[in-house]
Amino acid sequence: MDIDLNADLGEGFGPWRMGEDEALMGVISSANVACGYHAGDPLIMMRTVANAKARGIDIGAHVGFPDRQGFGRRPMQIDTAELASMVIYQLGALAGIARAAGYSMTHMSFHGALGNLAAADAALALPLLRAVADFDSELIVSSSSSRAIEQAAAQCGLRVATSFLADRAYDDEGLLVPRKLPNSVIHDPQAVFDRVKRFLDHGHVITYSGKQLAMPARSILVHGDTPGAVALARSIRDEIEGGASRIVPISQQLAAKT
Amino acid sequence: MDIDLNADLGEGFGPWRMGEDEALMGVISSANVACGYHAGDPLIMMRTVANAKARGIDIGAHVGFPDRQGFGRRPMQIDTAELASMVIYQLGALAGIARAAGYSMTHMSFHGALGNLAAADAALALPLLRAVADFDSELIVSSSSSRAIEQAAAQCGLRVATSFLADRAYDDEGLLVPRKLPNSVIHDPQAVFDRVKRFLDHGHVITYSGKQLAMPARSILVHGDTPGAVALARSIRDEIEGGASRIVPISQQLAAKT
Amino acid sequence: MDIDLNADLGEGFGPWRMGEDEALMGVISSANVACGYHAGDPLIMMRTVANAKARGIDIGAHVGFPDRQGFGRRPMQIDTAELASMVIYQLGALAGIARAAGYSMTHMSFHGALGNLAAADAALALPLLRAVADFDSELIVSSSSSRAIEQAAAQCGLRVATSFLADRAYDDEGLLVPRKLPNSVIHDPQAVFDRVKRFLDHGHVITYSGKQLAMPARSILVHGDTPGAVALARSIRDEIEGGASRIVPISQQLAAKT
Amino acid sequence: MDIDLNADLGEGFGPWRMGEDEALMGVISSANVACGYHAGDPLIMMRTVANAKARGIDIGAHVGFPDRQGFGRRPMQIDTAELASMVIYQLGALAGIARAAGYSMTHMSFHGALGNLAAADAALALPLLRAVADFDSELIVSSSSSRAIEQAAAQCGLRVATSFLADRAYDDEGLLVPRKLPNSVIHDPQAVFDRVKRFLDHGHVITYSGKQLAMPARSILVHGDTPGAVALARSIRDEIEGGASRIVPISQQLAAKT
Repeated sequence: MDIDLNADLGEGFGPWRMGEDEALMGVISSANVACGYHAGDPLIMMRTVANAKARGIDIGAHVGFPDRQGFGRRPMQIDTAELASMVIYQLGALAGIARAAGYSMTHMSFHGALGNLAAADAALALPLLRAVADFDSELIVSSSSSRAIEQAAAQCGLRVATSFLADRAYDDEGLLVPRKLPNSVIHDPQAVFDRVKRFLDHGHVITYSGKQLAMPARSILVHGDTPGAVALARSIRDEIEGGASRIVPISQQLAAKT
Repeated sequence: MDIDLNADLGEGFGPWRMGEDEALMGVISSANVACGYHAGDPLIMMRTVANAKARGIDIGAHVGFPDRQGFGRRPMQIDTAELASMVIYQLGALAGIARAAGYSMTHMSFHGALGNLAAADAALALPLLRAVADFDSELIVSSSSSRAIEQAAAQCGLRVATSFLADRAYDDEGLLVPRKLPNSVIHDPQAVFDRVKRFLDHGHVITYSGKQLAMPARSILVHGDTPGAVALARSIRDEIEGGASRIVPISQQLAAKT
Repeated sequence: MDIDLNADLGEGFGPWRMGEDEALMGVISSANVACGYHAGDPLIMMRTVANAKARGIDIGAHVGFPDRQGFGRRPMQIDTAELASMVIYQLGALAGIARAAGYSMTHMSFHGALGNLAAADAALALPLLRAVADFDSELIVSSSSSRAIEQAAAQCGLRVATSFLADRAYDDEGLLVPRKLPNSVIHDPQAVFDRVKRFLDHGHVITYSGKQLAMPARSILVHGDTPGAVALARSIRDEIEGGASRIVPISQQLAAKT
Repeated sequence: MDIDLNADLGEGFGPWRMGEDEALMGVISSANVACGYHAGDPLIMMRTVANAKARGIDIGAHVGFPDRQGFGRRPMQIDTAELASMVIYQLGALAGIARAAGYSMTHMSFHGALGNLAAADAALALPLLRAVADFDSELIVSSSSSRAIEQAAAQCGLRVATSFLADRAYDDEGLLVPRKLPNSVIHDPQAVFDRVKRFLDHGHVITYSGKQLAMPARSILVHGDTPGAVALARSIRDEIEGGASRIVPISQQLAAKT
């Protein structure tokens, strides 16, 4: 099996940094790059893209709410047309930085509260993915499992790559359990690793309520903002490569659109 | 003679508006659209682009300092590499919004303090225009007369369209007189109109010190944020069209790059 | 009867202005001043305070969500402790500017979405008013009619002055009808004036559903961001003063705390 | 001799942190708290103030340019009246947060580029310190050595406490050498410690050009954003307390104004 390893990178702002981007870049195959709304700024984006290009890592736009102070994790009620324009703005900004660097953007994903809202609400997912398709219908939508996203993408002619968030609890619908709930984020590296192993070996995850849920993902998301993140990512990579699988970026797994 | 009439549009933010964009759109042939740094936001950008497309008006990115509170008119000392990344970010954002609207961006210009600094300093103009060329070497650089901009553009393989700012005083080098000096901005519509007429009839401007200065422009910038701006723009258009000249956007005046 | 006439002022930002502050200042007795979160900036605050002081008008902090782009009208889910700190920050900023001007702040009110949420939710109103009381328990809370606000204020030892928003529709509980609903904002000056007259003559308002609702207000809010606002405010003032009533700022209506 | 140990704290923003505030709080006697302009936000300010109060540490407002992305280190040309209003806004915000916490602010200092500009330019220092005095003439101005600041403070009736920045190079006038110059920031903890020892033992510093310069400071600033900062601060504290000196906050060193 081909598996993509991806991480959210470039989540600093101005003088501040988050996560160990440099070290993670040595392990992953795809980077989701913050675009200046919930995190990131042009200089950080430019450097992240340059590093990704040097390593041959896929880059995608990690699109969020306009709320640095809340890191895009606070739901905001924004009119859909305006939100769609914000999505395009962020896609364009990263695509522009990639283009100036002689590189190109392969995918996009929604960050934080925007991602949770879109994953749970078809009425929101559709206009946002329509905006993505209007911008570039070749972009792959990277998402945690969500029927709303999958259906909207199908309607808009966009390809979806489901990503498994190994350190986040899932409900029985395959949606992420909100961060505010206890144990929604799994901090123990061994527990996270065990979930990855279960996913690799059996293709499923144990949900928050204890059920088995099929996880048809071809990509694993590793989070970089916790201590031990790089070692965990490395052990996941080793586990994948130690078996019959290979690390392959999403853009090379999915057939090109015809 | 073919003359472009251009204006700075989309200079609102959130709930605030500036200038009479709708009315000006009926008069001009090119719009310089704020990109969210000194003014503008994604929704305003999207609407401005849609209006421009509906009327067949050229659009360009109006790139400024990251300072809404100061409207991009306050000089900021930003490292050149970071400033270049900010230029690309803004270009990409507007290009993305244009692309999603099925339209495309033809030109770019620098706003306010960034424009003044770049026009006066070859050491700044070169890396910024290098960034523009890295992003898209087909873009036309719209600028008030500036040897620094012209030379940098030539080095980067970019075409320049000189714009005549009819309501701004010029020094003997052809640079704009700083806004802080008295009479640097000409508010009397008749005086502005007379300057336009002199430019159209004789190809020159009377400088701040009283000298004649040749003005090799193919474009006239009309400002929209003053009372009477639309009537003035209309009278300029009538004056141009009443003579032997035509209103033609820059992108149709300049030969395509080969 | 003593009636306060108040308006939301200082709602510009940087180069942008909103409403006719100067003209309204000549009509009202209290100003609610934006504090830099949903609108306003230090220079605008300083000038608004100076003008209010020159005219002897009461000033209060108009406290909102940190969202200029959405003008504080978009609900945001912010942790209560953080929101309380934002309330205090804004109170302190305006109090500081007043102090430096040799003036003082008499009241506070919540703006937009923050105001709507607090008015409808006692669990939010209490910690926010606790923050107000922690900052200065002498401040008067100016609010549209809301049981949540009134009860929370009573618990915190704060005085409340109910304000009648003549151009906004009320539901049968006395809460403002959300702006998104049709006819929630009354634009016709004559209709607004008639509502004021009914309030002055009979002490009630006709709700969205057509019921009579007692309106125990001692203050009328006039909005300044619509055409004709100043004329309307003037006619309201004339109506009040033409009867047996006087225009008196809230701080002079309410007995001082003992 | 009584010596104050102070540090710049609360320099995070939203999800980002900078420096080891908790550990430094155990060593210092005064904290300069960022006020939301170059860094800091209301929640961080509230927590920093609460921690300082719990430990009996003095707090002051660390006032900067409105530029988080540049961390207040980029010079901006802002009109003096507007800059003065920004100073007051920040003072008010922190004073408000302190007041709500049942604590009070004892001092203020200028951060980064604003501090460098004010220290070098009497024409800027005077209106800014006038703004400080208008807000609260009891506030102590904490500053690196600067004749401009000292004279302006004297004119405004403000007390100055000179702070020795042990890890920054000084020119022969006692001004800080700009950060862009090589060796302007001293990173070697032993070298910094030696400078502190020289200052404690002899009351002078060796300037960038190699001269002895008298350093009439009663306060030492330790920076918290470098590795080893806490250990260095601790060794400085031990050195002070191991001699005949005591750690005493500025507000207790200076006679109260009469």
